[in-house]
Amino acid sequence: MKICKSADTRLENFIKSKENVETSFNRVEKQRNKCGFGMQGVCCRLCANGPCRITPKSPRGVCGATADTIVARNFLRSVAAGSACYLHIVETTAKNLKSVGEKREKIKGIDTLNQLAKLFGIEAEDIYDKAVKVADMVLNDLYKPRDEKMTLVEKVAYKPRFERWKELNILPGGAKSEVFDALVKTSTNLNSDPVDMLMHCLNIGISTGLYGLTLTNLLNDIMLGEPVIRKDSVGFKVVDEGYINIMVTGHQHSIISHLQERLIDEDVKKRAESVGAKGFKIVGCTCVGQDLQLRGEHYQEVFSGHAGNNFTSESLLSTGAIDLLLSEFNCTIPGLEIVADKYMVDMVCLDDVAKKVNAEYKKFSMDKKEEISEYIINKALESYKNRRDKVEVDIPKDHGNDETITGVSEKSLKSFLGGSWKPLIDLIAEGKIKGVAGVVGCSNLTAKGHDVFTVELTKELIKRDIIVLSAGCSSGGLENVGLMTPEAAKYAGENLRAVCQKLGIPPVLNFGPCLAIGRLEIVAAELAEALNIDIPQLPLVLSAPQWLEEQALADGAFGLALGLPLHLAIPPFITGSKVVTEVLTEKLTDITGGKLILEDNVKKAADKLEEIVIERRKDLGLEANEEKTA
Amino acid sequence: MKICKSADTRLENFIKSKENVETSFNRVEKQRNKCGFGMQGVCCRLCANGPCRITPKSPRGVCGATADTIVARNFLRSVAAGSACYLHIVETTAKNLKSVGEKREKIKGIDTLNQLAKLFGIEAEDIYDKAVKVADMVLNDLYKPRDEKMTLVEKVAYKPRFERWKELNILPGGAKSEVFDALVKTSTNLNSDPVDMLMHCLNIGISTGLYGLTLTNLLNDIMLGEPVIRKDSVGFKVVDEGYINIMVTGHQHSIISHLQERLIDEDVKKRAESVGAKGFKIVGCTCVGQDLQLRGEHYQEVFSGHAGNNFTSESLLSTGAIDLLLSEFNCTIPGLEIVADKYMVDMVCLDDVAKKVNAEYKKFSMDKKEEISEYIINKALESYKNRRDKVEVDIPKDHGNDETITGVSEKSLKSFLGGSWKPLIDLIAEGKIKGVAGVVGCSNLTAKGHDVFTVELTKELIKRDIIVLSAGCSSGGLENVGLMTPEAAKYAGENLRAVCQKLGIPPVLNFGPCLAIGRLEIVAAELAEALNIDIPQLPLVLSAPQWLEEQALADGAFGLALGLPLHLAIPPFITGSKVVTEVLTEKLTDITGGKLILEDNVKKAADKLEEIVIERRKDLGLEANEEKTA
Repeated sequence: MKICKSADTRLENFIKSKENVETSFNRVEKQRNKCGFGMQGVCCRLCANGPCRITPKSPRGVCGATADTIVARNFLRSVAAGSACYLHIVETTAKNLKSVGEKREKIKGIDTLNQLAKLFGIEAEDIYDKAVKVADMVLNDLYKPRDEKMTLVEKVAYKPRFERWKELNILPGGAKSEVFDALVKTSTNLNSDPVDMLMHCLNIGISTGLYGLTLTNLLNDIMLGEPVIRKDSVGFKVVDEGYINIMVTGHQHSIISHLQERLIDEDVKKRAESVGAKGFKIVGCTCVGQDLQLRGEHYQEVFSGHAGNNFTSESLLSTGAIDLLLSEFNCTIPGLEIVADKYMVDMVCLDDVAKKVNAEYKKFSMDKKEEISEYIINKALESYKNRRDKVEVDIPKDHGNDETITGVSEKSLKSFLGGSWKPLIDLIAEGKIKGVAGVVGCSNLTAKGHDVFTVELTKELIKRDIIVLSAGCSSGGLENVGLMTPEAAKYAGENLRAVCQKLGIPPVLNFGPCLAIGRLEIVAAELAEALNIDIPQLPLVLSAPQWLEEQALADGAFGLALGLPLHLAIPPFITGSKVVTEVLTEKLTDITGGKLILEDNVKKAADKLEEIVIERRKDLGLEANEEKTA
Repeated sequence: MKICKSADTRLENFIKSKENVETSFNRVEKQRNKCGFGMQGVCCRLCANGPCRITPKSPRGVCGATADTIVARNFLRSVAAGSACYLHIVETTAKNLKSVGEKREKIKGIDTLNQLAKLFGIEAEDIYDKAVKVADMVLNDLYKPRDEKMTLVEKVAYKPRFERWKELNILPGGAKSEVFDALVKTSTNLNSDPVDMLMHCLNIGISTGLYGLTLTNLLNDIMLGEPVIRKDSVGFKVVDEGYINIMVTGHQHSIISHLQERLIDEDVKKRAESVGAKGFKIVGCTCVGQDLQLRGEHYQEVFSGHAGNNFTSESLLSTGAIDLLLSEFNCTIPGLEIVADKYMVDMVCLDDVAKKVNAEYKKFSMDKKEEISEYIINKALESYKNRRDKVEVDIPKDHGNDETITGVSEKSLKSFLGGSWKPLIDLIAEGKIKGVAGVVGCSNLTAKGHDVFTVELTKELIKRDIIVLSAGCSSGGLENVGLMTPEAAKYAGENLRAVCQKLGIPPVLNFGPCLAIGRLEIVAAELAEALNIDIPQLPLVLSAPQWLEEQALADGAFGLALGLPLHLAIPPFITGSKVVTEVLTEKLTDITGGKLILEDNVKKAADKLEEIVIERRKDLGLEANEEKTA
């Protein structure tokens, strides 16, 4: 059976060993034959005169739309959909925080609550009132009409960026309305202007970033606890067949927070014991798993660890040791359904946007959380009883490692550095760390295979003394191959290696889920502020080498709005438009300072990113600048 | 030069005569080669592992998505986009009405205002307060979160339908949020359940219909005047080259209402005269033109008449007599840009969702309406001065007719019948009118050519004594070929012909723009109420034979939620999914009572629709029912 490669060879071998289990690794081989029109984005299926495809002989669709119009429409619609996903997440999170405040339930991140309340200008003595008000301000902004600007943008954004966005007239009105009108704009016979649509992408990128990413993290920190740097186990080895194992997929951590607490109550543990298990465990997978891992300090008993990223999820089921699959958002890939059936794993879905064909849908709300936790517990108990004597359990205990450093956030990292960014800035100034690269986003199976590009590029970057910060399924891949263990310092260049060894840190820092791209933005803004420069001047680059989803495109739009260079190994479906490609890869430099870099060769990508880092260092006077002084 | 056929042969000949003008009629020939995957809806480009295409050898995408999932996702996203368009329209309309109320400006449709205020339970003496409150109730509903049901649904919907929707759990929460979450649902690795997604389509159909369609009409009636039945000229003959002609395209009539008034002020007319013109005229095109025509009674001086539908618009520019193209929404096809350039027609766009590449964008708001009208007037004056001696004017004065009956609405029709539906019900009961067919929606170029299927099907239906009500670009086509003149009674069957001749009406009634599909719904509900039955029991069928846009799919979802049989000549991109096709074409009968009928043969389509009409008549005891009594 031919399957695609993985950077994680142990995983690849495990998948190979399960010959009768169909996964994405097999299907990618069957879908190798790609449509050229789709790849270039020049296929339009908005109307019954179509689908139309742009070719040299038919340079316009029936309606007259050019390749530029069609590509821009398709692209904006994708970015809007991606943004919609993140906004759905932040909305759920804010609603859940509001409920926690209203019901005066446990608030675990008082510091973050106070920080946000201060930032938002909220006057309240009572922490629960404060939580409600913080949540309300977020929700109010999300629901504003498009012609009312959101109030928190100015408070959350880095000031020089805010000013630039204002000049460019891309400050978002109500975030949901901006997405909504992007959907309108990209409908049949409406907007045809590629530049207008690209500017709309940037506008959407801003709200995606500040609300969907940054604020989601902070609201979660309030409810679920702030990340603490610690060592944790990762990979399939975290699965303990002695427990009733609930695997989670999604992005909305607060939806499962009640369950997490409940699973370790004595009465519930007793119920597990009564069917012969040691108790319940939550096995992390995809971003919600990364988020659990990030806050692992607070969930040591119930959380068995993070097993892997999106395309690891199917084979995690094939260990046979998972008893229930609980999902609340993407990346819950449809292929899970097949493996769940085969291994008799019941599926429960808590948010209908992510309803899978063979999952039971149980609508989550904070008002019903007790009832829902009870339902899930019963479901898991039953499933455990029903399936364990019928399926083979085969956990590759040598997959993963026990030394992954997790819990890195903008706060925990700064505190690790002694409460200030100065040590990091000094290391950069001295050249011990040449620069910073965010290697973020998804995992896909097409950029050289599963996590292959991500891992190879990361190795290339650290070899060049560029420290890597990771968030998203990329971090799931990087941690499973050991790059987030202190021992990985050996892959770094001489200078970075010395830094890592001195501090006992890995050369690749694990910020957790894709949501934490928002934390990277905070780090970038705080570094820029400390240096009194704007973000595009930092020796900081981004790569989402193995971007997969529309959400990644919305993240990318945020990166470009921030003025960062953003590398992708696989182009989004834009190359059929000269205008769109030129604006994103060239002209944007003069607009936001950002730029898209499309490069499918690992070394060349690393070269280009390093070059930018060096250029920025020169501009900051950190390197001899022969050309400029010549 | 090969071009596609039109039911409107005079138009077809005119287009042929303009050999150097490229229009959609040419391009459709160049785009004949269609992608089979796209046609069947089994192409997915949601992620960087794709695009994937479903074939017998690769029955799932890389992620595991089946044809059912992919088709349902694509379809729901299209319906959501179409709904978003209509919701954008009703939002603009409500905002404009609110401004009219706040500024205590002219209210032309007091009766409709009072009717809605009563229906909504609004207590206010002052009509301006009433207008503000009506508008606010609509806006508030649109902006509710998804988990709060909209309050006006129960007030506006026909009661038995409301009850059915409640049972089915498809009552919409906040309309914009329902669309928003449909976008989320159809994103990468989220919902995979085709049935859940189809039910979401129905939910969205309800808000599209009740708000986007029905309420938009009524809010416009308040601001712009209620339709009055009258005779009007249609076709290119309405264009008078002696005037400065502003062609309008779009769907948001209230955006141009200030301009309409201003253009006939004495000072403005004088300015037109000063450059040698007789004054200003607005030439109707697409739905905003239909809407102007519908309310033509109130705009006799400024409105020169409705020239034609979406695919007539390009050649309208090639008459050379249009000086400015003013657009505020779709269907402003991109091909207009080419012809506008050629004929030196400036383009101004008033809503950025419809920004065309070479149009100037002037953001409309009620606060700036004076300034915007002034801008447009100056722009039109300049364009007239600049272009008239440089372009050839060639108006086919024999295109169209002067006898089209317009101004038909739920109110004007009932009043024409003497204030009650009884005369119509009696005619139906007696079999003089066998039934009612709504032939609605767009025009496309692929169902036998421009308006060909629409016109042929309409003729087939009236021949069978089924009276046709039309709304949308379909009515633009039907009126230009004369089917909305009293003389067209000659095409009707013996019984219907006699009715038409007696009443002096055409066999095809002109409700105007696609928005007026909402008026048809009111007629249907009132007929059902008079008969004390539910809508699916009426001898009433729908056809959108030449549907074009995603908006038509959202309209269709409304029709299916209403429980009506809906015929399409060209299937939406769903045929690659057995589940989706079966649910829509068969199982839906047991759900809402509606059903999709896919039939590309005119006679067979008419047969199927007539059969349903006869069946319904039998069930109501209006026909001998041999089988049932046997």
